[in-house]
Amino acid sequence: MSVIALLTDFGLKDHYVSQMKGVILSINENAKIVDITHEIEKYNVYAGAFILYLAAKFFPKGTIYVAVVDPSVGSERKPLLIDAKGGFFIGPDNGLLMLAAKEKGITAVYQLLNTKYFRKEPSSTFHGRDIFAPIAAYLSLGVSPKEFGEQITSYEAPSFIEAKVERDKILCEVIYIDSFGNIITNATPFHLEKLTLSLGDWINLRIKNKKYKINFSKSYFNVKKGRLLALIGSHGFLELAINSGNAAKNLKVKSGDKIVLEKI
Amino acid sequence: MSVIALLTDFGLKDHYVSQMKGVILSINENAKIVDITHEIEKYNVYAGAFILYLAAKFFPKGTIYVAVVDPSVGSERKPLLIDAKGGFFIGPDNGLLMLAAKEKGITAVYQLLNTKYFRKEPSSTFHGRDIFAPIAAYLSLGVSPKEFGEQITSYEAPSFIEAKVERDKILCEVIYIDSFGNIITNATPFHLEKLTLSLGDWINLRIKNKKYKINFSKSYFNVKKGRLLALIGSHGFLELAINSGNAAKNLKVKSGDKIVLEKI
Amino acid sequence: MSVIALLTDFGLKDHYVSQMKGVILSINENAKIVDITHEIEKYNVYAGAFILYLAAKFFPKGTIYVAVVDPSVGSERKPLLIDAKGGFFIGPDNGLLMLAAKEKGITAVYQLLNTKYFRKEPSSTFHGRDIFAPIAAYLSLGVSPKEFGEQITSYEAPSFIEAKVERDKILCEVIYIDSFGNIITNATPFHLEKLTLSLGDWINLRIKNKKYKINFSKSYFNVKKGRLLALIGSHGFLELAINSGNAAKNLKVKSGDKIVLEKI
Repeated sequence: MSVIALLTDFGLKDHYVSQMKGVILSINENAKIVDITHEIEKYNVYAGAFILYLAAKFFPKGTIYVAVVDPSVGSERKPLLIDAKGGFFIGPDNGLLMLAAKEKGITAVYQLLNTKYFRKEPSSTFHGRDIFAPIAAYLSLGVSPKEFGEQITSYEAPSFIEAKVERDKILCEVIYIDSFGNIITNATPFHLEKLTLSLGDWINLRIKNKKYKINFSKSYFNVKKGRLLALIGSHGFLELAINSGNAAKNLKVKSGDKIVLEKI
Repeated sequence: MSVIALLTDFGLKDHYVSQMKGVILSINENAKIVDITHEIEKYNVYAGAFILYLAAKFFPKGTIYVAVVDPSVGSERKPLLIDAKGGFFIGPDNGLLMLAAKEKGITAVYQLLNTKYFRKEPSSTFHGRDIFAPIAAYLSLGVSPKEFGEQITSYEAPSFIEAKVERDKILCEVIYIDSFGNIITNATPFHLEKLTLSLGDWINLRIKNKKYKINFSKSYFNVKKGRLLALIGSHGFLELAINSGNAAKNLKVKSGDKIVLEKI
Repeated sequence: MSVIALLTDFGLKDHYVSQMKGVILSINENAKIVDITHEIEKYNVYAGAFILYLAAKFFPKGTIYVAVVDPSVGSERKPLLIDAKGGFFIGPDNGLLMLAAKEKGITAVYQLLNTKYFRKEPSSTFHGRDIFAPIAAYLSLGVSPKEFGEQITSYEAPSFIEAKVERDKILCEVIYIDSFGNIITNATPFHLEKLTLSLGDWINLRIKNKKYKINFSKSYFNVKKGRLLALIGSHGFLELAINSGNAAKNLKVKSGDKIVLEKI
């Protein structure tokens, strides 16, 4: 029994997500549908790609991921099925699937063309329901990926800026802010090692034209309540957080903001 | 294995939805529960009926729908089970179930009376948990609809205002605003055809004492980002939207607002 | 097939909940995962304990509850598994599990120590994913509770203030405000009986230095729309509500606020 895992920016108040689930269950009543999230910021392909990447690391082998953050639905952008080591990714060709699929290892990318597996008269505005959901359901029934379309070699890949180390400084940026207000950056243990940073060391942090002296700690509780700290989060990236507080609100930080880190 | 699909205005932060699920699983541990949504605007029976109608079109035959937007719980309003072609609808007699049930075709309507299938000492404030959830669970186990109460022929039906065409103008209104800010109206392709409107045509839109000239397009991307357009949405109704933007916020529109459309 | 019921303060927009589900399904692909809620107010152990208590009353025997509201994750606070009559509770030793577990009857409390059942290299910041989720999954596969750690007899218990009756007055406080704005207090029918209060009686309510005369009713509809009333809610506690309105907003009340009730 394959898991079908859904990620969208549709929110939960409307009919969109339930229609996708209804379509899947109408084709495969035994499908095991799991929500990754439907609260991706509207139209934010970058955030969707990042959350899909983090979630897909932990799902069972063979999981079928359906992801829809699709501002150009109805245009010429292609509908895709990616056959990857350990899972399948279905969604629009706008980079949304690529972080996760590359992490697993891409075996083949198919453009979805076989309308036999689409809903009849698919809409121009909701491929999630009319193309991606039924393809996922048929795939979960054992239809071969090749059946759904033609293999392609050219597709959108998101260009995420990598952190870098220059003159003993880490130059990185905010890639995601979670619901706790934790600030997730694109710096990793790889960059911290270059600065020979160890747990307990102090860091000069520059962000939004302000400077903070913060501790590099193991967990939130290592600093007093209300204090800013840096840590490697459970996602594997450098995170700026406030113990029992909201770092992003306090620092007035948003995705894309530049950060400079320096060992003291 | 029947699907039990839930729709309420309970929100997700409290215990209400989980208690309903607990009750269902305590009676039928194999029940396949799917959330349509629990984010219907509080007490908005109209919005609940509309979303239930849109969702139910896509669920498998035999689905048991439990819907609770129930401002008059504990009053004399009847608890209902509707046996419809293709599914069962359980909820209060306030019109909530009727759009969806009529669309499928009503076979019989039962007033729920057989307390044997209620929870013991049902509360006056939470029939979702104490009456509707257990009835749904027993129904999913194969208990006959007739077992739960008596057939009735008089029940509330929602009176949704229909759009109309007068002197080459469509007079319609806003029936729902989705989480993207898309404005869904009660006009349909039927009304557009009367105006001989085709894709690419221009429309004069009057709403909230303002006038807009907008294109009737196939999908959002057909106009520039930030531009207002009209299209037939994936729900089958005329929708006013802004490409990658929030039309309802920009136009300061809410459900019930009147709209006049005219071909240019 | 055991139900695994999840309660957290993680919200739904991020990857946290989905990673927990992925971990569970990777260990037991047949696990039946049900969300109680993930919208507990951040870091509010008290609110989490209360909702878990209310939900757990209605789930099937044998349900495995995983609850994570865990501001001191990564500190010395212990990870627990509670074997209770009718279910298992997994989560941090901060009182979160105790209201629900005590209600069911605690058989044994185990400190989770056997790293064989943890994820490899568990993080210091996300025990929900790295310790609690895998333990729940292995438990659902039939591993004995004793396998996971050592029985302990000392653990945190939340100290919830009880309502009391003094000189014909009920002194109570707000313990929870639901998404309707209903104000749930720690007074129960036990306290009301001491005042010989019956349905239809009038009450003097003092809260936030204001005084209200309200009716003790059976359900919301018993008073006019917009009117404040008192009733025993479906949760079994005395609730202050406004028919079709938001009592907490109107009275500017929050959890912990003191209330005095007096029969007129």
